[in-house]
Amino acid sequence: MTKKAVVLVSGGLDSATALAIARDQGYDCYALSFDYEQRHQVELESARKVAASLGAVDHKVVRLGLSDFGGSALTDHAIDVPRHQEEESVEIPVTYVPARNTVFLSLALGWAEVLDADAIFIGVNAVDYSGYPDCRPEYIAAFQTMANLATKRGVEGNPIAIETPLISLTKVEIIRQGIALGVDYGLTLSCYAPDEEGRACGECDSCYLRKQGFEQADVADPTRYIPTK
Amino acid sequence: MTKKAVVLVSGGLDSATALAIARDQGYDCYALSFDYEQRHQVELESARKVAASLGAVDHKVVRLGLSDFGGSALTDHAIDVPRHQEEESVEIPVTYVPARNTVFLSLALGWAEVLDADAIFIGVNAVDYSGYPDCRPEYIAAFQTMANLATKRGVEGNPIAIETPLISLTKVEIIRQGIALGVDYGLTLSCYAPDEEGRACGECDSCYLRKQGFEQADVADPTRYIPTK
Repeated sequence: MTKKAVVLVSGGLDSATALAIARDQGYDCYALSFDYEQRHQVELESARKVAASLGAVDHKVVRLGLSDFGGSALTDHAIDVPRHQEEESVEIPVTYVPARNTVFLSLALGWAEVLDADAIFIGVNAVDYSGYPDCRPEYIAAFQTMANLATKRGVEGNPIAIETPLISLTKVEIIRQGIALGVDYGLTLSCYAPDEEGRACGECDSCYLRKQGFEQADVADPTRYIPTK
Repeated sequence: MTKKAVVLVSGGLDSATALAIARDQGYDCYALSFDYEQRHQVELESARKVAASLGAVDHKVVRLGLSDFGGSALTDHAIDVPRHQEEESVEIPVTYVPARNTVFLSLALGWAEVLDADAIFIGVNAVDYSGYPDCRPEYIAAFQTMANLATKRGVEGNPIAIETPLISLTKVEIIRQGIALGVDYGLTLSCYAPDEEGRACGECDSCYLRKQGFEQADVADPTRYIPTK
């Protein structure tokens, strides 16, 4: 019987790579994205292209009223997305979406139960994690323990595995792995503040890390940037 | 400073009691409900009345596309809600919504982070729990551990407490406690298959347990039932 995986696909570079890895491991992939009224709706366009190009069996975009809560520059239109800061910071940044990975993994868990899927893939990364607490291995391990107690399969001793294939990779290693697996990074969008055509700002934290990744991997950067004035 | 709690309010008897208990413990209460395209939209009307009558500071109804996943009689209109069965069953019933408490608690955690709330109250109950794995104390403890690793407050050593004041109470004890705290159970709706006016079917598992609770508590049942033909 074919193995099934729910794969969280945001439209960005990391989750596209996670999807390619899940497919390479022999899973039938069910891509899951969220319409949480993010500032960057064009992300969802990228997610659709990524899911289709990497052969996802199905792709669902689930509506989620996260912006009702406010509190993040990624959903609250009154807060500006900051430019990348050179200094190291231990602060959790304003681009943090409250409990985002917990909410996304929980919904993935729900779909995985319905599908009787064997695994959930999420492209979290603890290296370039920008200080988000829910990108750390100890967080993922705790989510797995909780999920085992929450689900039919967990109760029956056949848990749904939470897979984080990128968690200890650098951006360069992620890009190299993705390219080896045929990911077209030109379809992906990582920027926190893209324009309506899906072009990247080139200045936010996410753009900075991505640009640096392509440079260090010695790969041509396929990102479309907003022309500088 | 006033303590704040996010309280999950479904419109049912249990969550109304949990809200009354949170208020009695001195919390400013922020009621949270979900519009997950449940069959019983009238539940949300009950949730609004309950939140208002018990003095919630705010009440948010968050949209959530859970029915996209299918698989439950409570969201999938193609599956019938079963009548209550007298026999004990160890099966997880068809009324189980996949990963529901995990999804609801995760969203409550997100709002709690934005509000800087001290606690989340959820009216889960392990006595009349109908075989749902995510109503057990060990599940709640695992969610707490995960939440402590997921959140700013948890990382800073001041975690958001997951409070389950009903977890070990019988339905009779819940009703007695709620009445002592002034809950108007006439505003609540527990039925899995109510009519459009919000009248209860009297025949599903949830109606059965509720009816029995009022009988055993020796309290007049304020529920409006659909007249039997």
